[in-house]
Amino acid sequence: MRQLKEKCGLFGVYNSSEASFLTFLGLFSLQHRGEESCGIIVFDGESFNSHKGMGLVSEVFNNQILQGLKGHQAIGHVRYSTTGSSALKNIQPLIVDSRRLPIALAHNGNLVNSESLRNSLEGKGAIFQTTSDSELILHLIMRSKETGLIDKIKTALKKVKGAYSLLIMGKEEIIGIRDPLGFRPLCIGKRGNEYFIVSESCSLDLIEAKFVREVEPGEIVVINKNGIKSVRYAPLPKRLAYCSFEHVYFSRPDSKVFGETVHLVRKKLGAKLAQEFPVEADCVIGVPDSGTSSALGFAEELNIPFEIGIIRNHYIGRTFIQPYQQKRDLGVKLKFNILEEVVKGKRVVIVDDSIVRGTTSRIRVKNLRKMGAKEVHLRIGCPPHKYGCFYGIDFPDPATLIAHNRSIKEMEKYLDVDSLGYLSLEGMLSCFKNAENHYCTACWSGNYPLKCAICDKHSLERNC
Amino acid sequence: MRQLKEKCGLFGVYNSSEASFLTFLGLFSLQHRGEESCGIIVFDGESFNSHKGMGLVSEVFNNQILQGLKGHQAIGHVRYSTTGSSALKNIQPLIVDSRRLPIALAHNGNLVNSESLRNSLEGKGAIFQTTSDSELILHLIMRSKETGLIDKIKTALKKVKGAYSLLIMGKEEIIGIRDPLGFRPLCIGKRGNEYFIVSESCSLDLIEAKFVREVEPGEIVVINKNGIKSVRYAPLPKRLAYCSFEHVYFSRPDSKVFGETVHLVRKKLGAKLAQEFPVEADCVIGVPDSGTSSALGFAEELNIPFEIGIIRNHYIGRTFIQPYQQKRDLGVKLKFNILEEVVKGKRVVIVDDSIVRGTTSRIRVKNLRKMGAKEVHLRIGCPPHKYGCFYGIDFPDPATLIAHNRSIKEMEKYLDVDSLGYLSLEGMLSCFKNAENHYCTACWSGNYPLKCAICDKHSLERNC
Amino acid sequence: MRQLKEKCGLFGVYNSSEASFLTFLGLFSLQHRGEESCGIIVFDGESFNSHKGMGLVSEVFNNQILQGLKGHQAIGHVRYSTTGSSALKNIQPLIVDSRRLPIALAHNGNLVNSESLRNSLEGKGAIFQTTSDSELILHLIMRSKETGLIDKIKTALKKVKGAYSLLIMGKEEIIGIRDPLGFRPLCIGKRGNEYFIVSESCSLDLIEAKFVREVEPGEIVVINKNGIKSVRYAPLPKRLAYCSFEHVYFSRPDSKVFGETVHLVRKKLGAKLAQEFPVEADCVIGVPDSGTSSALGFAEELNIPFEIGIIRNHYIGRTFIQPYQQKRDLGVKLKFNILEEVVKGKRVVIVDDSIVRGTTSRIRVKNLRKMGAKEVHLRIGCPPHKYGCFYGIDFPDPATLIAHNRSIKEMEKYLDVDSLGYLSLEGMLSCFKNAENHYCTACWSGNYPLKCAICDKHSLERNC
Amino acid sequence: MRQLKEKCGLFGVYNSSEASFLTFLGLFSLQHRGEESCGIIVFDGESFNSHKGMGLVSEVFNNQILQGLKGHQAIGHVRYSTTGSSALKNIQPLIVDSRRLPIALAHNGNLVNSESLRNSLEGKGAIFQTTSDSELILHLIMRSKETGLIDKIKTALKKVKGAYSLLIMGKEEIIGIRDPLGFRPLCIGKRGNEYFIVSESCSLDLIEAKFVREVEPGEIVVINKNGIKSVRYAPLPKRLAYCSFEHVYFSRPDSKVFGETVHLVRKKLGAKLAQEFPVEADCVIGVPDSGTSSALGFAEELNIPFEIGIIRNHYIGRTFIQPYQQKRDLGVKLKFNILEEVVKGKRVVIVDDSIVRGTTSRIRVKNLRKMGAKEVHLRIGCPPHKYGCFYGIDFPDPATLIAHNRSIKEMEKYLDVDSLGYLSLEGMLSCFKNAENHYCTACWSGNYPLKCAICDKHSLERNC
Repeated sequence: MRQLKEKCGLFGVYNSSEASFLTFLGLFSLQHRGEESCGIIVFDGESFNSHKGMGLVSEVFNNQILQGLKGHQAIGHVRYSTTGSSALKNIQPLIVDSRRLPIALAHNGNLVNSESLRNSLEGKGAIFQTTSDSELILHLIMRSKETGLIDKIKTALKKVKGAYSLLIMGKEEIIGIRDPLGFRPLCIGKRGNEYFIVSESCSLDLIEAKFVREVEPGEIVVINKNGIKSVRYAPLPKRLAYCSFEHVYFSRPDSKVFGETVHLVRKKLGAKLAQEFPVEADCVIGVPDSGTSSALGFAEELNIPFEIGIIRNHYIGRTFIQPYQQKRDLGVKLKFNILEEVVKGKRVVIVDDSIVRGTTSRIRVKNLRKMGAKEVHLRIGCPPHKYGCFYGIDFPDPATLIAHNRSIKEMEKYLDVDSLGYLSLEGMLSCFKNAENHYCTACWSGNYPLKCAICDKHSLERNC
Repeated sequence: MRQLKEKCGLFGVYNSSEASFLTFLGLFSLQHRGEESCGIIVFDGESFNSHKGMGLVSEVFNNQILQGLKGHQAIGHVRYSTTGSSALKNIQPLIVDSRRLPIALAHNGNLVNSESLRNSLEGKGAIFQTTSDSELILHLIMRSKETGLIDKIKTALKKVKGAYSLLIMGKEEIIGIRDPLGFRPLCIGKRGNEYFIVSESCSLDLIEAKFVREVEPGEIVVINKNGIKSVRYAPLPKRLAYCSFEHVYFSRPDSKVFGETVHLVRKKLGAKLAQEFPVEADCVIGVPDSGTSSALGFAEELNIPFEIGIIRNHYIGRTFIQPYQQKRDLGVKLKFNILEEVVKGKRVVIVDDSIVRGTTSRIRVKNLRKMGAKEVHLRIGCPPHKYGCFYGIDFPDPATLIAHNRSIKEMEKYLDVDSLGYLSLEGMLSCFKNAENHYCTACWSGNYPLKCAICDKHSLERNC
Repeated sequence: MRQLKEKCGLFGVYNSSEASFLTFLGLFSLQHRGEESCGIIVFDGESFNSHKGMGLVSEVFNNQILQGLKGHQAIGHVRYSTTGSSALKNIQPLIVDSRRLPIALAHNGNLVNSESLRNSLEGKGAIFQTTSDSELILHLIMRSKETGLIDKIKTALKKVKGAYSLLIMGKEEIIGIRDPLGFRPLCIGKRGNEYFIVSESCSLDLIEAKFVREVEPGEIVVINKNGIKSVRYAPLPKRLAYCSFEHVYFSRPDSKVFGETVHLVRKKLGAKLAQEFPVEADCVIGVPDSGTSSALGFAEELNIPFEIGIIRNHYIGRTFIQPYQQKRDLGVKLKFNILEEVVKGKRVVIVDDSIVRGTTSRIRVKNLRKMGAKEVHLRIGCPPHKYGCFYGIDFPDPATLIAHNRSIKEMEKYLDVDSLGYLSLEGMLSCFKNAENHYCTACWSGNYPLKCAICDKHSLERNC
Repeated sequence: MRQLKEKCGLFGVYNSSEASFLTFLGLFSLQHRGEESCGIIVFDGESFNSHKGMGLVSEVFNNQILQGLKGHQAIGHVRYSTTGSSALKNIQPLIVDSRRLPIALAHNGNLVNSESLRNSLEGKGAIFQTTSDSELILHLIMRSKETGLIDKIKTALKKVKGAYSLLIMGKEEIIGIRDPLGFRPLCIGKRGNEYFIVSESCSLDLIEAKFVREVEPGEIVVINKNGIKSVRYAPLPKRLAYCSFEHVYFSRPDSKVFGETVHLVRKKLGAKLAQEFPVEADCVIGVPDSGTSSALGFAEELNIPFEIGIIRNHYIGRTFIQPYQQKRDLGVKLKFNILEEVVKGKRVVIVDDSIVRGTTSRIRVKNLRKMGAKEVHLRIGCPPHKYGCFYGIDFPDPATLIAHNRSIKEMEKYLDVDSLGYLSLEGMLSCFKNAENHYCTACWSGNYPLKCAICDKHSLERNC
């Protein structure tokens, strides 16, 4: 139902006797960052071996496949991938089958100057196998005149602009990179002599590795037989652009992201929301699962009973029912059932992490009323979404967002709620560490941290 | 991880233009009652058509298959099925391909005199295609000398003994039956002129059908063109045997079972538990998802903050990782991650619905301590399990149960908890409606409501 | 293209350490007798294990599956199976899961009194799982009051009427049976201490077993630890009913069937045909593959050069192109290509084993003329088909047969040939051993060897 | 069994409303040129769409897939592909996803300077996605500084050396190219306003297109809206290098290749063989299917009866039995059965198209003797193979060839034949048109038509 999709999750491992199995586990724990395809590439000292496929990690891999992926270092990728016949070739990690400099690459994020880069490279005879912007980075690296891999990478990164957390595997190293503004998370882990570079810390928990630190914006972290080496390719700017939406919605509550545990950030968002939009009510219900943490913070702040009033069906997966979901609100009902006896005759506060189009929320409110709720108050743990994202989140067309050209009153009417409260931008930022200049808020504020490479005004060159 | 498995879920529909699709939805919402195989049989006025397979409902069926299952009445079944090459043939519903009296049957429960029945039928030349006890009922019906289907069924049911909720579909009707003691739930729904007979009411919610009533113990409910007809084949005894474990663990929290909403029963169990085993603590955490309701009741009763300290991975499904689960507690970690910052330095109460072997609980406590919990108090929403079940729940060998031959002190030591509290049998029953003589408590009390057909002492004839 | 389909092929093995693998090989060599499904059942001293599936033997089985089928005795079956959702359950061998008398059965042929038998058994409460007549035999065996398996079988066979070669496997034996008139072939092989009962001798060649002898009409051959035992359950009648079409079309040319090697019989058919319908021509071409033997006999007899003028595509398999086959004669062209330079300007004799509807022949003649053949003479190695078969061959509706209500002249015109010659019934029989009273010729003569059980006139009771 | 494998078959179509379906049919008829993978790319006026897969044409494609491949021009490829995980990416046709110059390419043959070309291109930053030499040609085309596609292709072809028949599809044309020596066949067809460029003429027969002419060595044939245009990029040399093995073994007997119908060439080879190595015998048997034509020529020349003594199993496909084939000569027996009654007591001539390692022949002779053949005379329709092929045929290591370091006498002994006769090189060439200087005979004579690009002596640079 939810329309927002993150592009990807990354997991890399160096110096492990069970590299492919750990990568499998890591991708499994990052599954929420991309449910549509996944891949693992291992290096066994001689050659790269890979397995990729459409589907969940547990569908694409099995024991036999993992045992065939031998090697002491590996990188893996989960992805939200466009559908259609061309999808297969776009599955990452990508690989360069070169005798001189074989490398593999996985990318989380979105470049903003891909079009001009691609035109320029095609003009020089480059052959593209995919339609992804990630392949551009590979071409730039391979065409660099520098000799060492790190220098080639530095040359290449000077030409790309946008949001990217990267994992690159060479014959003797794995490399983690975060773009200069640090849009997407990436962190380093360690377990004995094994090293990891991963999108979210929850994947380190699963394999009982220690969280070492985050890769810094503008940093290249090289892990090889000499341990961890840090190379800066861009100065650390004052103004960063951590994606606030990682805290609000994408990251797992049990991950440490941008220095904080997501669940606790969300509880703070809920408490702040309660201060900004208090209400008298009989119970507070979170929309499972991402709204639960904020709901708990909200309930505690106002001392209203927290309740479980919406039951989520865990089998929903990617069932074929999707075509039917339009019909009779079936999609919403399949995913969530409301507990009649919890809401009947009650004044209910529903806390959700965010609203995109509002379609699901509207159906939910209708069902709550049908079940006898006396009042329905909706509280949202972030400001109203009004703008698109060019840095890796697949927002729908802004014109379809519920907050597009609608006042709070109009939204209350559309959603048929007794009251609607969105957390303010300041309120949200006040719940983050170093919030003043570390976060991208473009989808709420329209204030894009990267400007068009041509006019330096718009956020994306294609607007020129 | 959880070792307990219910045998089955049932869903039947009469007089609907979308019978197979509704049955698909119904089975989808009953998926928790059987994840390993499923099947649907429709009747189109001429012949029965069926589709069955190993796997989840969303894996076995797709749009094309459902469109091929034409007809106005259907019955479906989800099942926990034994593995192995013979599994396929045991998938229900079963069917009799007869020109005179074609019928289909789905069964939830377990017969206790199947061995002697089977011997006797084989002696008369009956050919069995499955190893399930459900097929016995079919043979008994087909061999009855009575003329009408209902009379044949009545004859047959006189010979079987045990726990059974049944769905039978003939050419002109669907029939719901509950055994005389009412072990398993079964209820009736209605939507316009469409009728439903289903295991749990949550499947009626999904399709927006109205809950009419439960099928009574010892009742045959016939739904045909004349509407609902009730036939008693056994007197309603004073002493019934509703399965308490449906409330404690199996049924969905949003279902109405044995007259009560499961989530609310569980909250009451948690509150009662808090009264019986209060504790001073900083937070109360429920084991997701079945422990959450009791945890909420527990926290409210003692006014201790309810927290989310354990995150469940929704992608676990039936991944191939199972062979690895022994290794390094991986299985538990794959399913649950603990939120370090929630438990660190805290006195934590963990509320779980039940414990079987205790292996998972023990690992969980170890992980909580590793994450820095100062105290760990475990509270269980039912009494200690000590006995096997012969009525449809697949308990492991009693000798492997944690409460087998262990005192509370010994269990506290084994689990390494600061305190352990099990709800008392009386406490549990006090949370149920009409609890005095309506519930089976055999797995806790050893008091089996059905006796061996031979010696009238043991609970199962095979003990003679 | 060819519309005629045999029902089945059988292969059984006793006392072999590689029973399932040999059965796999045997079925592989009998694949021409049934391309649509196959199955193997082994007995390992404790229980029957089976694997069955839709598709070719090489598609349904693989190494792992065969290794899982452990045991020293096995029976297997290949089948032409009706399509549709119910096909799977009809795949043979069939099995009775009984503790007293577990048996498995495979059947080649067709019963003629199945309808009345089924009605009678259903009246007694028998439950049928399949729509095949083979299951009837199982029920009759299981319901027999006799004590030993052989006596039970004898009782059962007294009630069935029709064409059947049977393989039955019990816990201690495999049993081969041929019906009293001997419609379908069945023979015994031996390799060291291993025994085989198989449909055609070509499957013995593959595994290098020795051909021992044919099972006789009306004979039950029991193979157990005491070796081969023969039991007659019906006297050997003067008049037998070997299926002539096994020689003409079905059996593999390298099999010994009814005492003769099929290829040599077909050469004799071709030579006789040349005597009956000589022609002056430049070359003789056989329709691959079943017409090649007759063409060779024809060419030799008249001393006309034998040529290869039609190339068969070996990849045709069961491609999905079938829906397109109507269109522009594509089906025929996909299977066969004509060698233009062989036929151009030539007087060509085409020899085919038989014609059913004539559609394929007609297209072939058209293509030959398009390629420049000056004259086309068609010669058929059997008489014109005019009647249906009730004994296991799936002829189309007689009204659609080319020879139905058409004179030779009319057929010549329809097929656009310069001359058409069918071998006479006497001519055909003269090429068989003991032809006078050993062969069924019903599909040509309308002279059915079995009469209706009710009126003793028609060939099948359903005509009454 | 046969160890020789051709690299590929090509089929292209221009201006057809059923381009993908015709390409499917064409590939189906070229299946013998590559059984392991296949692919089709169509152009619909906007973009290329492709479908590729491992397996037979009938396995990889189905109706739905073909209907999704919309467009008026298409090229397709069947391939003998190396196995392993990297096989998928090597499936052709290859595609360049470029906005400026999107092209697709399919290649039959083998380059001899691929190593140095690849090194040079990688040095310039080219990224390779496959390990096939065909991708080199794509890179050379895309990097050419010329402006038009044809000029780019001409620049590229100047740099490659080896055997290649190519199909290239641009947005407005399909292009057929044969290397300057013409190793591999390629011809043009026409049906109404539809044009075809295909490997063998048999694929034109299937779709009822007219054979127009062969593409000439060193010719680029461009088919676009203006019809057929011919561009020479290399002068037609006196000395050509048609692959003789296409006539001897690879091409289908019903194809016209290098100006002659293959079946008739093979009959001539058989007749010539009879003149060179006559023998007194009772029958002549061809090894099916490629030895049959020569056997017929042999039998006619000496007036010995042609017989069918070896039956080929048409179901052999690519069954999993391959691991078992070592064991007990099973592989040979699975594919071929000998007709005992045809060979028993006879002096038999076996005619085969060629021998590679001799393993299969040896087993066959052993089986013939076991079946009672009195004498076995082996005749081969080409000279002894002694050398490897660098132009697209996958010969085994020369040291494993039966004729390597063995005299005829030694081979007779090894094979246990009464006599062995190989057709002489001159004899073989005398059966071909323009044989003197048009054919490559390297695998027999060691006389390689292309020399190493470095030393100009060896046949392949890697020998330097």
